[in-house]
Order: sequence, then C-alpha cells, then structure tokens
Amino acid sequence: MIKKFAAELIGTAVLVFFGCGAAVLAGFDVVGQLGIALAFGFAIIAMAYGIGPVSGCHVNPAVSLGAFIAGRMSAKDMVVYWVAQFIGAVIGAMILGAIAKTGFAHLGQNGFDAGSPGGYGLHAALIFEIVATAIFVIAILGVTGAKGHGAFAGVSIGITLAVIHIVGIQVTGVSVNPARSFGPAILAGGQALSQLWVFIVAPLVGAVLGGLLFRLKLLEPEA
Amino acid sequence: MIKKFAAELIGTAVLVFFGCGAAVLAGFDVVGQLGIALAFGFAIIAMAYGIGPVSGCHVNPAVSLGAFIAGRMSAKDMVVYWVAQFIGAVIGAMILGAIAKTGFAHLGQNGFDAGSPGGYGLHAALIFEIVATAIFVIAILGVTGAKGHGAFAGVSIGITLAVIHIVGIQVTGVSVNPARSFGPAILAGGQALSQLWVFIVAPLVGAVLGGLLFRLKLLEPEA
Amino acid sequence: MIKKFAAELIGTAVLVFFGCGAAVLAGFDVVGQLGIALAFGFAIIAMAYGIGPVSGCHVNPAVSLGAFIAGRMSAKDMVVYWVAQFIGAVIGAMILGAIAKTGFAHLGQNGFDAGSPGGYGLHAALIFEIVATAIFVIAILGVTGAKGHGAFAGVSIGITLAVIHIVGIQVTGVSVNPARSFGPAILAGGQALSQLWVFIVAPLVGAVLGGLLFRLKLLEPEA
Amino acid sequence: MIKKFAAELIGTAVLVFFGCGAAVLAGFDVVGQLGIALAFGFAIIAMAYGIGPVSGCHVNPAVSLGAFIAGRMSAKDMVVYWVAQFIGAVIGAMILGAIAKTGFAHLGQNGFDAGSPGGYGLHAALIFEIVATAIFVIAILGVTGAKGHGAFAGVSIGITLAVIHIVGIQVTGVSVNPARSFGPAILAGGQALSQLWVFIVAPLVGAVLGGLLFRLKLLEPEA
Repeated sequence: MIKKFAAELIGTAVLVFFGCGAAVLAGFDVVGQLGIALAFGFAIIAMAYGIGPVSGCHVNPAVSLGAFIAGRMSAKDMVVYWVAQFIGAVIGAMILGAIAKTGFAHLGQNGFDAGSPGGYGLHAALIFEIVATAIFVIAILGVTGAKGHGAFAGVSIGITLAVIHIVGIQVTGVSVNPARSFGPAILAGGQALSQLWVFIVAPLVGAVLGGLLFRLKLLEPEA
Repeated sequence: MIKKFAAELIGTAVLVFFGCGAAVLAGFDVVGQLGIALAFGFAIIAMAYGIGPVSGCHVNPAVSLGAFIAGRMSAKDMVVYWVAQFIGAVIGAMILGAIAKTGFAHLGQNGFDAGSPGGYGLHAALIFEIVATAIFVIAILGVTGAKGHGAFAGVSIGITLAVIHIVGIQVTGVSVNPARSFGPAILAGGQALSQLWVFIVAPLVGAVLGGLLFRLKLLEPEA
Repeated sequence: MIKKFAAELIGTAVLVFFGCGAAVLAGFDVVGQLGIALAFGFAIIAMAYGIGPVSGCHVNPAVSLGAFIAGRMSAKDMVVYWVAQFIGAVIGAMILGAIAKTGFAHLGQNGFDAGSPGGYGLHAALIFEIVATAIFVIAILGVTGAKGHGAFAGVSIGITLAVIHIVGIQVTGVSVNPARSFGPAILAGGQALSQLWVFIVAPLVGAVLGGLLFRLKLLEPEA
Repeated sequence: MIKKFAAELIGTAVLVFFGCGAAVLAGFDVVGQLGIALAFGFAIIAMAYGIGPVSGCHVNPAVSLGAFIAGRMSAKDMVVYWVAQFIGAVIGAMILGAIAKTGFAHLGQNGFDAGSPGGYGLHAALIFEIVATAIFVIAILGVTGAKGHGAFAGVSIGITLAVIHIVGIQVTGVSVNPARSFGPAILAGGQALSQLWVFIVAPLVGAVLGGLLFRLKLLEPEA
C-alpha cells in the first residue's frame, strides 16, 4: 500500500504541476486555453502509463469515489488514495509556486463569479462540474471495465480530461477533481479558499452519478 | 438492448455537449477553430472507449446507416440506435443551453449561406457534407472490420472527426451527423431549423456511398 | 490488386482533400499552421486504419519507393501504387477546388522562392524535402518492420507527418510526397507546375536514402 | 552495438532538427508555443516507433542515466549511447542551421535570465529542469517496466515531453536533455555555451532522482 500511496501522491503532484503550471508559467497569451487543456490531459497520459502499473493512477478523489460506488475499490483503499491525492496536490502547487514569478498568489485556482475566467456564476459552475465529472467517471469506468480496451485507458482518459478543459475553462477553470482544486486554493487562500467547497462537492456528486450507472449495470456490457 | 439504447443516448449527448460546448462556452476567440475541432474528435475518443464496450459508440445516425448498408447491423437495431441518438443530442444541447450565457439561442448550429461561418453556400455545403461523411464512414468501417486494428478504432475515428472539423467548420460548422445537427436546431429554431434538412440528407447520402464501398467488397481486405 | 488500387486512390485523395483543404478552406488565419499540420497528420491516421488493412496505406509515391528500396515491395506493385496515388491526388484536389471560393487557383501548392510561405529558396527547399522525407521513410519502415509495433503504425506515421509540417510549412508548404504536390500543381498550373520537379525529385531522393538504411541493415533490429 | 549507435545518433538528430526546427523555422508567431511543444513530443513518437526497435530510442543522456540508475542498462552501454546522442544532436543542429535564414545564430538554444523566453532566473531554471526531468524519467521507467504497457511507450513518452514543453518553454526553452542543449549551444556559442552547464547538470540530477525511485522499488509494481 505504501507504493500505491507514493504513486498517487506523485501522480497528483504532477497533474497539478503540469496542468496548473501551463496556466501559470505559460498562460492564455502564450499557449492559449487549448494549450492549458492539453496540459491537463497530457499530464494524465504521462502518469497513467508511468505510475498506473502501481496504483491505477486515479490522482483524483472523485475518480476513487466513482470506483468505490461502482464496486471496484474498497472504502479503506479509497481513503488512503484520498489522503495521498490531497497531499500530492499541495506539493505540486508548492513546487509551482516556487518557480512562478507570482509566487503563491496565482496557482491556477478554480472559481465562479469573479473567480471564473468567463464570468460564469454558481449555477453554471455546479451544472458544469457535476455533468463533466459524471462523464469523466463514465469514460474511466468504461475503458477500465472487463470488456474495455484497458491498455488504451491512459490515452482515452487523458483525452477526456483535455476535452473537458477545452469546453469548461471559461466556466470554472475546470476542477472535476477536488484535490486539484484543494492544492492551489489552500496555498493561494482568499476567494479560491472560500469557493473551494463547490469544487469538492460538485465533482463528488458527479462521481456518484457516474458510478451508479455502472453499479446499476446500465453501462456494464452484456457478459 | 436497453443498455445499448442508454449508451447511445448518453454518448450522443456527450458529443453534442462537448463538441458544441467548445463552440459555445469557449468559442473561436478562446480555443480557435482547432480547439473546437479537437473537442468533437476528443468527445468521440472519450465515448468510444467509455461506452463502446456496450453499444459500439455510433452516436451518429449516418454511422449506423453506413453499418447497415455494409451489412454489419440489422435494420431494427439501426432504428433503435437512431431514436437514442436523436434524443441524446437534444439532451446534450439542453444541458449546454442551461449553462450558456446565450441560453438556447446559440448552440453550435450547422448552416450554409448566412448560417455558414465562412459564408459558404448550399452547393459547397452539400459537396462537403456528402464527401466528408463518406470518408468518415470508410474510416470507421475499415478500422472496425475483420482485419482492422479494432482496439484503435476509438482513436482513429476520433482523429478522423477532428480533421473533418479542422477542414470544414468554415463551410457548414460540420455536421456529418444528423443527430448532432438536430439537437441544437430543434432548440434554437429559426434558420438552423429551416436548413436542418441539408444536415440530415447529405450525411445520410454520404453514409450510403461509404457503406456501399464495403458492401461491394471494394474496400474489404482479401480473406 | 484492384482493391489495393482503389484503396490507394481513395487514401491519397483523402490526404489531399483534408491536408490541402485545411490550408484552403480554413487557412492560416483560422486554424493556424499547427491546424494545417495536424490536418495532414490526422488524414494519414484516418486512412491508415481505414484503408490500411487493404493496401497498407502508402498514399505517397516516395513511401512506396522507400518500401521497394528496402526490399519490402515489388517494382510492379510499386508502379500500380504510383498510378493510383497520382490519380487520387488529382481527384482530391478537384473535389477541393469544387468547394473552395478560390476555385482551382489556390489548392495548397508547394513551392520555393515566391512560392514558399516563408520565402525560402531552392537550396533550403531541397535540403528540407530530402531530409524530411528520409526521416519520414525511416519512421515508416521502422514501425512496420518485423520488430515494430505494427498496430501503432497509423498513429506514429501520422504524428510524424504532422511534425514535419509543423517544422516545414514555412519552407515549402511541405511535400515529402510527389503525388500530394502533383494534384494541386496540375490543376493550379503556373508557378506550382514549373516548380513541381523539386517536389518530385527531392522526396524520391530522400526516400532512397531512408530505404537504404534498412536495405543495408543499419536500422534493422538484431534478429 | 553499431546499430544501436546509429539509431541513437539518428534519433537525437531528428529530435533536435524537428524540436528546435519548429522554434527556428516556424517560431512563436507561426505555430505558437503549443506547436513547438508538440513538435518535440511528436519527434519522440516518430523515433520511438521508428528506431525504438533497434535501440529503445533514449535519444537523451538523462534518460540513459536514469535507466542505468534503475539497473536497466550497463555503464558501458550508457557511455556508447551518450556519445551517439551528443554527436547526433550536433548533426541535427547543423542541418537546421543549413536551412535557417539566421544560420547558426539561432538554433533553439536553452537559457536563463536573458536566455529565458519568459525572463526566468537561474533559481527557477534549476528547479524546473530537475523536477521536469525527474518526472520525465518516472514516466519512461514506468511505461517500459515489466508491468507497463510497453507498446504505448512511444506515445506516452512523447506526450510527456510535449506537456513538459507546454509548461516550461517560457522558463528555459526546456532542456531535460543535455544533448538537445549541447547541439545548438556548441554551434551558436556565446550565452548559450556559457549557460550550457545548467542544462547538463540539472537534467542529470533529475534523472538520478527519478531513477532512484525505481531502484529503491518505490515505484516498481508488486510482483
């Protein structure tokens, strides 16, 4: 379990360092929203094949919850994964802050209203984060299921996270991952911290919805 | 069959939500035409591996028609898929409209003349949609055939849809998928609805052409 | 052989329609040089998995020459492929011209001096086309060799063509494929036609160089 | 061993020619930082499948060091790979300089302070290069390990290098590869040469860190 803990911690740190790093060290003017979106997706691909053999590369508490709901992970393992993911996200954000010219003030936080890149409100943020996380969990549970092309999971999951960011960065900066939101918020504080609850609650709700579709066998292929 | 119905409905909803969502929530100024094109292609990859194990992930009435023409699907199944696809597309567009600042007025509709991003007319729209759909169906039937690398189908089909959009968004916004055009048009109404027939007829014609090449064994590998 | 002929003809037509189509129907201002580069690469991926099971998807006389030099193809087959490829390229360019607002005047021709997007001369054009084609052929012969991951050939070859275009569109618009240059040039005429010899000779020279490295067993893995 | 030497030399030349070529022949204004980042990643994918069957496609002294530290490569082989990689990088930069309008003055050198595209200093450069190389080596050793999806190594490693560049080009232009820095610096001289030590030392330090995680079995999957 120590190996899985280490793998999830490192993997989540890399996701935050690369994904948020693209927003902070490069930014909209340099790589565009498309570049930031691809950075998040590519970080998943990098880690899915790099640490996936050890832990499965969840690097996301919502994904672990979805796997638990679908009956593919024990509650005990889920909690271990969660702890590793939240710690990893903070470490990733700390390394980023040590390089960034703006220090810990701007670490790619999620937000709505004034915290939304496109000025979207709480209503839109909630719908987007719930729906996008549910889709994300469906994509993950489908490809990693008994009849899925498991070797392609890293590619397809990374691509799924990329498209979620292409669509949603304007809305919330895209969380679909409570740990990814937690790391930057805890270090940046302020508005990011006060809005953090949305990016913990909404992805978890979405993960439950996605997980239930598999638990209830609706998206489970015929044997 | 209920599982396949659910899978096709969800998959088509995701395609519309992500593909049209990139155009509506991000748009040309934020992610560029390239970003929108990749969103459509990435949505297919996400769903091909996510729901593909259940239904094969057609999420497109033209694709189902091509599979029927090629003798790979029964007429009865095709009709069930069609119903799921059209319903899913409307649901995807509804979720998008619930988030978008412009509501249901702008949902990534297809069009020609005034409805074409680049001002292309009916003549160009018909040629593009027929040719592009025929190519799309060839790409799909080839990779999913007996000698194709079936595990790569999700990647190659998604990439194919992406390049079709890179090339053709200026012409019609790219349909090659009657359901994808139907969802936004039915909610937005107006010009999108009056031009909808083109984006139902042309993709189906292209699908027949592509499917016939396989039905006639011209693109079927030697045994 | 009729199937292979048909597959190569269709595949080359699709390459020209999508690759040159991205330059003509979208263009630098709409999808950027990156979008055009990806269109060429994605077209290869689409066809590699779509028609590859039939013909191997060369869709490029230089690739067929490289395969012949490496001893993987007969001279007779090579000639049949060449005829199909040149005809297909013309057909692809004709369909494009039928849609484009500029008709047959602008079809994504290759060129140097005044015909080079970045104003590069004959010297630079020759070096680039020879070196890039040699690399392209190495990438192809390596992945399709006995110890290569053949199922990944479509992805890796398409990606290789994409990066060649990212680097070289400013130099010559990128040929590395005599047929791809022939189709647009024969229809557009003028400067494209008078400079066409460069984009037939240089890719073929590069293909010989790349093919020889395998013929001489230098890049052939140990048995 | 002569085959492996040739493969590493060619592969590293291609990496520099394509990666740095995207920066020099296309540049920020034409393909953006995203295009340059993808060029580096795509070059790895091209060579991983093209020459990987011969040498494993390290094309990077830091990667070879990481493999040695992890116990997957002998010291003698590592030295042979290193020589091939440094020579190949110089050849790749020479071909690029022969095409570029700016000759050998601008070859995509790495740097900090005045040599950093975003004006980042030595402190940030060291942290970024060490951390990014460690992550790069983890991604490589994970996917090429006994339980990794080895056939996907080319894709995942290329994608990893691409995201590293999306994030870090503003900081140092991104090395994570002493040979890639050496080739352009040796030909361009001046500031690039005086700062070269950073891009030899930092990637090697990062490679040791990444390699140790596998040597110490922390990221090695359970048997």
